[in-house]
Amino acid sequence: MKLGKWYVPVALGVILGLVAGSIVSYVSPAPTTEGEQAVSGAFVPPGKKDEYYMFASGGHSGQVYVIGIPSMRRIRTIPVFSRDSATGYGWDEESKKMLGGYTWGDLHHPALSETDGEYDGRFLYVNDNANNRAAMIDLKTFTTKQILGPIPNIMGPHSAAFVTPNTEYFMMATRFSVPMGGKYAPLDKYSKEYHGALSAQKIDQKTGKMKVAWQLKLPPWNYDLSDAGKKISGDWAFFTTYNTEEATELLEINASANETDYLVAINWKKAEQAVKDKKFEVINGVKVVDPTKVKGIAYLIPLPKSPHGVDVSPDGRWIVGSGKLDPTVTVYDFKKFIKAIEKEDFSGTKKGLPVVNFESVKEATVKVGLGPLHTQFGPDGYAYTTLFVESAVAKWKLGEWKVLDKVTVHYSPGHSSAAEGDTVSPDGKYLVALNKLSKDRHLSVGPSHPENMQLIDISGDKMKVINEAPIDPEPHYAQMVKADKIKPILKYEKDEKRPHSVWKKEDVRIEREGNHVTVHGLAVRTRFYPDKIEVNEGDKVTIYLTNIDLDQDITHGFAINLYDIDVEVQPGETKKIEFVADKPGVYPFYCSNFCSALHQEMQGYLLVKPKK
Amino acid sequence: MKLGKWYVPVALGVILGLVAGSIVSYVSPAPTTEGEQAVSGAFVPPGKKDEYYMFASGGHSGQVYVIGIPSMRRIRTIPVFSRDSATGYGWDEESKKMLGGYTWGDLHHPALSETDGEYDGRFLYVNDNANNRAAMIDLKTFTTKQILGPIPNIMGPHSAAFVTPNTEYFMMATRFSVPMGGKYAPLDKYSKEYHGALSAQKIDQKTGKMKVAWQLKLPPWNYDLSDAGKKISGDWAFFTTYNTEEATELLEINASANETDYLVAINWKKAEQAVKDKKFEVINGVKVVDPTKVKGIAYLIPLPKSPHGVDVSPDGRWIVGSGKLDPTVTVYDFKKFIKAIEKEDFSGTKKGLPVVNFESVKEATVKVGLGPLHTQFGPDGYAYTTLFVESAVAKWKLGEWKVLDKVTVHYSPGHSSAAEGDTVSPDGKYLVALNKLSKDRHLSVGPSHPENMQLIDISGDKMKVINEAPIDPEPHYAQMVKADKIKPILKYEKDEKRPHSVWKKEDVRIEREGNHVTVHGLAVRTRFYPDKIEVNEGDKVTIYLTNIDLDQDITHGFAINLYDIDVEVQPGETKKIEFVADKPGVYPFYCSNFCSALHQEMQGYLLVKPKK
Repeated sequence: MKLGKWYVPVALGVILGLVAGSIVSYVSPAPTTEGEQAVSGAFVPPGKKDEYYMFASGGHSGQVYVIGIPSMRRIRTIPVFSRDSATGYGWDEESKKMLGGYTWGDLHHPALSETDGEYDGRFLYVNDNANNRAAMIDLKTFTTKQILGPIPNIMGPHSAAFVTPNTEYFMMATRFSVPMGGKYAPLDKYSKEYHGALSAQKIDQKTGKMKVAWQLKLPPWNYDLSDAGKKISGDWAFFTTYNTEEATELLEINASANETDYLVAINWKKAEQAVKDKKFEVINGVKVVDPTKVKGIAYLIPLPKSPHGVDVSPDGRWIVGSGKLDPTVTVYDFKKFIKAIEKEDFSGTKKGLPVVNFESVKEATVKVGLGPLHTQFGPDGYAYTTLFVESAVAKWKLGEWKVLDKVTVHYSPGHSSAAEGDTVSPDGKYLVALNKLSKDRHLSVGPSHPENMQLIDISGDKMKVINEAPIDPEPHYAQMVKADKIKPILKYEKDEKRPHSVWKKEDVRIEREGNHVTVHGLAVRTRFYPDKIEVNEGDKVTIYLTNIDLDQDITHGFAINLYDIDVEVQPGETKKIEFVADKPGVYPFYCSNFCSALHQEMQGYLLVKPKK
Repeated sequence: MKLGKWYVPVALGVILGLVAGSIVSYVSPAPTTEGEQAVSGAFVPPGKKDEYYMFASGGHSGQVYVIGIPSMRRIRTIPVFSRDSATGYGWDEESKKMLGGYTWGDLHHPALSETDGEYDGRFLYVNDNANNRAAMIDLKTFTTKQILGPIPNIMGPHSAAFVTPNTEYFMMATRFSVPMGGKYAPLDKYSKEYHGALSAQKIDQKTGKMKVAWQLKLPPWNYDLSDAGKKISGDWAFFTTYNTEEATELLEINASANETDYLVAINWKKAEQAVKDKKFEVINGVKVVDPTKVKGIAYLIPLPKSPHGVDVSPDGRWIVGSGKLDPTVTVYDFKKFIKAIEKEDFSGTKKGLPVVNFESVKEATVKVGLGPLHTQFGPDGYAYTTLFVESAVAKWKLGEWKVLDKVTVHYSPGHSSAAEGDTVSPDGKYLVALNKLSKDRHLSVGPSHPENMQLIDISGDKMKVINEAPIDPEPHYAQMVKADKIKPILKYEKDEKRPHSVWKKEDVRIEREGNHVTVHGLAVRTRFYPDKIEVNEGDKVTIYLTNIDLDQDITHGFAINLYDIDVEVQPGETKKIEFVADKPGVYPFYCSNFCSALHQEMQGYLLVKPKK
């Protein structure tokens, strides 16, 4: 085989050197010493609760991690895209159906639902970079209630998730361009037959559920990060691109050739109108608008040096873009941008989309340091940019456009998450750096290290690292919300009309129809009714199991030995379990969730009579 | 259907009442106030490391949690019996084969390897209560290196894991009795055709790997917990039983009828000798010894009120058994036991096994409190018993046989774990209560609550709760080992002779043989070689991928969009990935483990050319 153009060793050396942390900061001020002695304020003593929930993506774990701040304790793992036997997620029929045959996902960016640009504590939306899906978690129960996808025409929707300021849409754009409609085309047709896409999912305000509303067809570039506009920019959304070089191999070199790639500014209200005006074609069952044909929807804003993060300030006016190979962030003024497009102050077009004049919209360039990736906001105009290569967080101020403080973190932060940081009114106080490398920071667990979260006190002039916690791979982004905004239920209602629920032992029954055995059973401390299920080899078995224990924290499990089944039934919940009894013999079933002093007695038998 | 004998409502009321925590301790001394204000000593500031590793079972998560003590930070989840996309475990060919088609496990009790009764930091052994398996984790890499099973003739090996004092054996006994040999028999044949079993796995001292050596056929009871003898009792192992009533339904009532069940004392050296003497039958391919026929192997010791835990003191002399419906623990003297069996001081036989005279072997009854489950040890003869119903830990002293202190925990502890607690020389200092319920202790995450670990300072006269952390379901037991005993490697060696490894770009190749495409590739910051893999629809594809980045913490991932594949390749490691290219089209692959500033550029394409 031909391996194509070979690697430039010098570039590799530079990158390795940078990542190894052997660099010296060349921007002032120098990092403060690390907060090794800082203790106060982060320890939450036994019996006290945390002030904030932080919802962190779990990356290729496919899950969401719920972390208490400031303690940094991981309170819960919410299974979303991967099966999770700890909660039986993926074994009962409802969750199995949601997962749709996929066994994992790459969950990158969580987005809390918003009302008027404030987190409202109702729903959490997440994206799956691996299998082109979106999911919704209901924060009443902390469980996944919808997985949508794979969504057609997009591929690796890394450039997500965010919701618009009143949770009208959950949007995501493709990281990888591919031939639209799932078709095959060789790579030498890349520039013509491959496309990027933005997919807009409309959200039902009552249920929180999404459906694909419309998409935009975009040039064959990589769309990386995104943010919703706020307030004055509320009708807009912003996406970063890289690889506008349209390279298909050796991206490390070939996608870093151009001096600038782009911010893509999307007017989603106008896109919505275009759909209403029937200005779309249907591709793979989805209404797709081509913004090169419908004007006013998409504009390109030049952004230097392989853009990564884009973040909109709380007032919606400043759009902060990071070129990861540039030691600066570039700040654009939304007001100037609106003026520029009104005046058609363009430097040209690229792939049919207008490119606005860089100098006309750029407000400032802030020299933050090496490898700037993402920016979060505090109150009073403070901004915090993570520096991957420099292993630091830079604090700077909107309007002043200069760095005021810098703190070293360990090591190589990706995103950070500020308290209420994505809202129109951030809290300040806490910022968590989500560091990709931990190296020597914790007891060693072999060649594969945990990620490392560090909690930074941002209440004073100087930032201070006050707490630190390892975490399983691999939080990419997180949102932090004031604890009192989240109002979970403690049990499911005793709904006597729920189909297949059984609340009284008198209603427990085993019924046979041909070779299909249906069990309506219940779990109660400390017994299953029934505790003997007799079937014949080859029977299909359906079990509906209701947990009638309505006390707080009395969850039961239902596991069958050697039948590879484990389901969790929360207080007041009904679960459906289905399998074919294809193995003859005697198989105990038991409560897999420690429930009481007689938990070990909570067992029964599945007896599978062999075929003659 | 007939549901059998109905529940006694009074019993339910009592149990619910107790569990609700509305009980008053009736044994002195009264619990101390909870350690809500206790702060000192538990907070590990940024940059400092923990003193101990705690290896906690993950219960029905199927995994092992590695927790730092005293910070209680979860440093790592080690996947064992369940797939784990965070580390790619279950997607590469080696781990897929180890899992053997099972998708989850119920991992109950971890056991560190020992030399002369001390943790030696080499291996960690665990059991799978769901699918009758045992696994070995190599503590050089913190990865699972062997899954053994399903092991024949045992069912739900809850009564595990422990290793003998020089890691000769890993033993586990069946919780559920079933017809031996995987046969079918109806429940009315329970007493005659169902059996319990103990399975002894011999451990290779060099590799740490197990193989099934021999088994004991036991009466059809439930075997619950176990512990290895130590020093003077080093040739022995002890198991608790319940349901010696041989009930097959309504165990909650029917298995609690007898005043006493038993401790089963097993002389494993004699069992080993019986095998050498060919005194076995082969059942399902395993050498099975019947201790009713070969004398001197198994003895029954009466233990009151539904036994649960059994724990052997550091000096090997005292065997502490807990009847979970009894407010006491019963302590037996191993020296008296040896005398009793020498003198044949038996009260009779049960199911062909001699029952030693209770009063002849019992040393003391310690009134610890309600719902005693498990006992751990400190130095100087101190013992710590968890009280599930009372939600407390009782401290008492060997020899004095009375409670010296009690501390409230939240809520309902199962096991606890003391520093070096299962060795011949426990450290004292720390004890972690593994509480099954957390209720209101943390920010609410809906109806399904986390478990709750509480760290108790046991260095003084009074115990003090000094830290607390929620944890995903469901740690059952944990072992805590001094940090300096564990010596992990930081990378895999650059082994140029390892089959299929590729260390130089010149050796990268794609080869086709018929419809089988084999790729020998490598991953290096920040590119895959090759980054284009062209195959035909229906081809079988095998990829060997070597991570040639040998710097600490530079792990790469390899994920293919929509092909449901995610694999982790640690520094210096080679992984094998195999799939059938059954979906035509263009599928990007990418590094799923953030590795450097140009991580987003680390991508390539799998092009699957459609059939004509």
